[in-house]
Amino acid sequence: MLRTHTCGELRLSDINKEVTLSGWVQKSRDLGGMTFIDLRDRYGITQLAFNDDTDKEMNVRARSVSREFVIQVTGTVIERESKNKNNPTGEIEILVKEFKILNESVTPPFTIEDNTDGGDELRMKYRYLDLRRNEVRKNLELRHRMAIETRNYLDKLNFLEVETPVLIKSTPEGARDFVVPSRMNAGQFYALPQSPQTFKQLLMVGGFDRYYQIVKCFRDEDLRADRQPEFTQIDCEMSFVEQKDILDTFEGLVRHLFKAVKNIDMPFVPHMTYADAMKYYGNDKPDTRFEMKFVEMNSVVAGKNFKVFDEAELVVAICAKGAAEYTRKQLDELTEWAKRPQIGATGLVYARHNADGTIKSSVDKFYNEEDLKAWSVACGSQPGDLILVLAGAEEKTRKAMSELRLEMGARLGLRDKTKFSALWVIDFPLLEWNDGDPNLLASLAGRWHAKHHPFTSPNPEDFELLKTNPGAVRANAYDLVINGVEIGGGSIRIHNKELQAQMFDLLGFTKEEAQKQFGFLMNAFEFGAPPHGGLAFGFDRLCSLFGGSDSIRDFIAFPKNNSGRDVMIDSPSEISDEQLKELNILSTIIK
Amino acid sequence: MLRTHTCGELRLSDINKEVTLSGWVQKSRDLGGMTFIDLRDRYGITQLAFNDDTDKEMNVRARSVSREFVIQVTGTVIERESKNKNNPTGEIEILVKEFKILNESVTPPFTIEDNTDGGDELRMKYRYLDLRRNEVRKNLELRHRMAIETRNYLDKLNFLEVETPVLIKSTPEGARDFVVPSRMNAGQFYALPQSPQTFKQLLMVGGFDRYYQIVKCFRDEDLRADRQPEFTQIDCEMSFVEQKDILDTFEGLVRHLFKAVKNIDMPFVPHMTYADAMKYYGNDKPDTRFEMKFVEMNSVVAGKNFKVFDEAELVVAICAKGAAEYTRKQLDELTEWAKRPQIGATGLVYARHNADGTIKSSVDKFYNEEDLKAWSVACGSQPGDLILVLAGAEEKTRKAMSELRLEMGARLGLRDKTKFSALWVIDFPLLEWNDGDPNLLASLAGRWHAKHHPFTSPNPEDFELLKTNPGAVRANAYDLVINGVEIGGGSIRIHNKELQAQMFDLLGFTKEEAQKQFGFLMNAFEFGAPPHGGLAFGFDRLCSLFGGSDSIRDFIAFPKNNSGRDVMIDSPSEISDEQLKELNILSTIIK
Repeated sequence: MLRTHTCGELRLSDINKEVTLSGWVQKSRDLGGMTFIDLRDRYGITQLAFNDDTDKEMNVRARSVSREFVIQVTGTVIERESKNKNNPTGEIEILVKEFKILNESVTPPFTIEDNTDGGDELRMKYRYLDLRRNEVRKNLELRHRMAIETRNYLDKLNFLEVETPVLIKSTPEGARDFVVPSRMNAGQFYALPQSPQTFKQLLMVGGFDRYYQIVKCFRDEDLRADRQPEFTQIDCEMSFVEQKDILDTFEGLVRHLFKAVKNIDMPFVPHMTYADAMKYYGNDKPDTRFEMKFVEMNSVVAGKNFKVFDEAELVVAICAKGAAEYTRKQLDELTEWAKRPQIGATGLVYARHNADGTIKSSVDKFYNEEDLKAWSVACGSQPGDLILVLAGAEEKTRKAMSELRLEMGARLGLRDKTKFSALWVIDFPLLEWNDGDPNLLASLAGRWHAKHHPFTSPNPEDFELLKTNPGAVRANAYDLVINGVEIGGGSIRIHNKELQAQMFDLLGFTKEEAQKQFGFLMNAFEFGAPPHGGLAFGFDRLCSLFGGSDSIRDFIAFPKNNSGRDVMIDSPSEISDEQLKELNILSTIIK
Repeated sequence: MLRTHTCGELRLSDINKEVTLSGWVQKSRDLGGMTFIDLRDRYGITQLAFNDDTDKEMNVRARSVSREFVIQVTGTVIERESKNKNNPTGEIEILVKEFKILNESVTPPFTIEDNTDGGDELRMKYRYLDLRRNEVRKNLELRHRMAIETRNYLDKLNFLEVETPVLIKSTPEGARDFVVPSRMNAGQFYALPQSPQTFKQLLMVGGFDRYYQIVKCFRDEDLRADRQPEFTQIDCEMSFVEQKDILDTFEGLVRHLFKAVKNIDMPFVPHMTYADAMKYYGNDKPDTRFEMKFVEMNSVVAGKNFKVFDEAELVVAICAKGAAEYTRKQLDELTEWAKRPQIGATGLVYARHNADGTIKSSVDKFYNEEDLKAWSVACGSQPGDLILVLAGAEEKTRKAMSELRLEMGARLGLRDKTKFSALWVIDFPLLEWNDGDPNLLASLAGRWHAKHHPFTSPNPEDFELLKTNPGAVRANAYDLVINGVEIGGGSIRIHNKELQAQMFDLLGFTKEEAQKQFGFLMNAFEFGAPPHGGLAFGFDRLCSLFGGSDSIRDFIAFPKNNSGRDVMIDSPSEISDEQLKELNILSTIIK
């Protein structure tokens, strides 16, 4: 080893030890006859002291090193005169006797500090330098710890980690696949998995009983800020279970992770139906760190000649606790905010429930004090609260109110990243109509699309509706939502060949297409498939939630940007004609 | 849960408990008024008893189920009259009170038994049924245990598991890459990693100090029986280390695995130079479970007018202990074996060291008793041993003798799968000449090729030879070999930009090519790259070694066949024109 100790471990108890350290120069201070260097490695920072009295020539050499040089020193651990209580090694320093430069460094394009001067793009291009920063490394250390604890928990419950293949078959019912031309099977392609869904179901058919995998998945979609073309799932499946068993098992995992990683005792996780989530939060992933539930006001506000409300499909209010003191200016600004196209409200009505008990609204022309009392009762407002009302077409208004609720939560400091509120959302619709989702192939538009995936079992109570009103069928599916973020989801699966065939039919597959793409699964169901179900958690997102960040990128060692590019290695890139020819493909882009 | 217990856990101490079990019908016996069903799940087999006295109708239904039906029963644990000591649950049975068929099964195409009647191809096509067999499941349980123990060991040593990207950049210096067309970056391609090599080195530049990952890698080569297009590595890298530190750390891992998984105390692992491995075993991955080392005989056999020996570049012998009693017929057969094109010997000379101390050879015309005594001394033969001699061109003869040695080891029962002998082979050549390796692009023929990879550091003692005699330069590289199988290997890496540039130059890269493909790594070396090195173990192979199998396929849940096909899901397959068009590629194969 080029060291006897790391830069994070020496203490007063090590005084007088002869040690060798290696690491990076964080900074150096030249005090003439003395030079001090802060030596950094992954484990910490240790102060090195070079002294003219010990070795003048060496002190001169020490003065010549710059930031991020890699050096190795041997010396004696001594007690520091001026101790640094903020650094675990701050009570000692190394009086250096031997000193060697292991590698030089040009000046980095940004400072390797907690508060760096590097912008996003620069830090992505030089990701290997960004990784030297405490914050970035700590994120990845957290991820490592989360993975270890996940495996420990599941291993104890008899889950087997099984690796499923990465080179699989294209199944264009979901989002777009990444494909891989086969050289040995000319004209044919593998696909990269969007999830190991069919394989984990086959493992259940194979009697594996409990499976998990922390696994890379791939989805070729137009990227948003928080999506990556490759992402990691905690993927799980269990046999001989019902929905409750899965929710209990994985609530247990999440509670274990909170306890083991963050020493937080998570309360038990409540269940909420999709219908209730939409009704009270306008959102299938409600942020339940704060209440501010939707109140439907149509009957309360009706009949006062206010056309906007009377003609609206939905009039919905929230009560923002303690916001009655918002100024006119603040409310105008909030109204403008709500009218932005991304939010989509046509206007914003408010009623201040003043500290003196009076209520004043922006529509006093139509509603007198008595009417507004009724608003207050409906919304449960107290003196000091602000009632905000939106009206319009139902779906659009719910969506806008959901955004407004989240915004008010943020403005009122109710979305504290150190607080965690989880819930299971259950009873999702089985199907949704595809109007032309840009993340699906165009040929799939104008059909029913499986909201979860085509293997999800309908709620047995709704079997009959499959034929008469497919859009109303509830799925035996569930999502775990924490702090308004969908952490994962899953379902009880179909394990019956006929029901699976009926499902493919409903999704617009011909029998031949279904057989060609999923024949192996339907055949497997002929041989004694057990009842089974499972779920998958987005591991990147779970890590970012634990780390208190909104961006999954911060928790990925080498992320891609919003165009799917790795700007560090400059990928994707062109490949040679020789390679293309061997793969029997032509690029249609003229170089 | 559709069960209260598994089929593997009930014992005499559970007598009189009311339990519910779910599982597969392994077999059933109809004794008229009684029916017995062996119910199987992953955890074991429990006997179910159906009795006319308890419920006649149910007994009739129980008789109707066939093998592999999925059923659920509730009943009472009772003591068996005739106990089965071979089954952990063999002292009890369940007197069934409630019985439900959860799913039916058609007759499986092969029996779900330890000794199945299914051939390889059938079992691959119905892999989900093969997975139900104890043997296959046990292999994958072993793999799970190996992964857990690997992580535990490395986690304790402060290694961080970091996920590196799967969509990377094509670097055609190694074997062929699988590539992935990018829809969002038209005309460009990602490549799947042959290993995370450059990323783990960048993690070292990023100060991660100790990295590991159990990770899928991809290599598009013409497959042999023991290769898969996607395979799994235990991939590791360390900073501030020398070769010895890496060998010690990972010898520790292997010893930990042997102890934890197989309860075997591995002795310490000896080191052998590549030169010695070739000299004594004709092979860079010698099977050291047995001796039978090569003895070079040129000087011993010279000058007796036997042209075959006198004119041979190499005359080499092995001494097969206790094989003097081989009959003439056996020796003729062995000679024919050695002359097969795969082995390539031109003939085989032998000398029997008989029990009475006399020595008789197949070339007595040229060598008298005294001459043969000299052979015996050189080979260290004892009465009862058989000396086997090959002669010819050096490289070819070493290779043939290596095969003969392994064959004799097998024939003499010296290659016991329950015995393990490990060694580190060190000091490999840095480069090898590419005469036209079919696993490399044709354009790379007639150049030096990095034997390990282009990032391997030359042995510092040989730096000068880089310019004068590149073929003689030793690499700072090492392989772990167990029982004649290369389990893994690695090297100390180049961490200096100039040396790396020199290496690319030697490998025939122009400056522009090197910059285009590996510029990110060489740039990273400008910013204080630490000395570092690492290795990778073939995880599939390590599991198969531990499991006593020659085939890695047995330890992969869903393997591909020798044409790279998954015959279960029928992949690779054609994809739609719509998909191809979106990817801006054309298949040149006319459908």
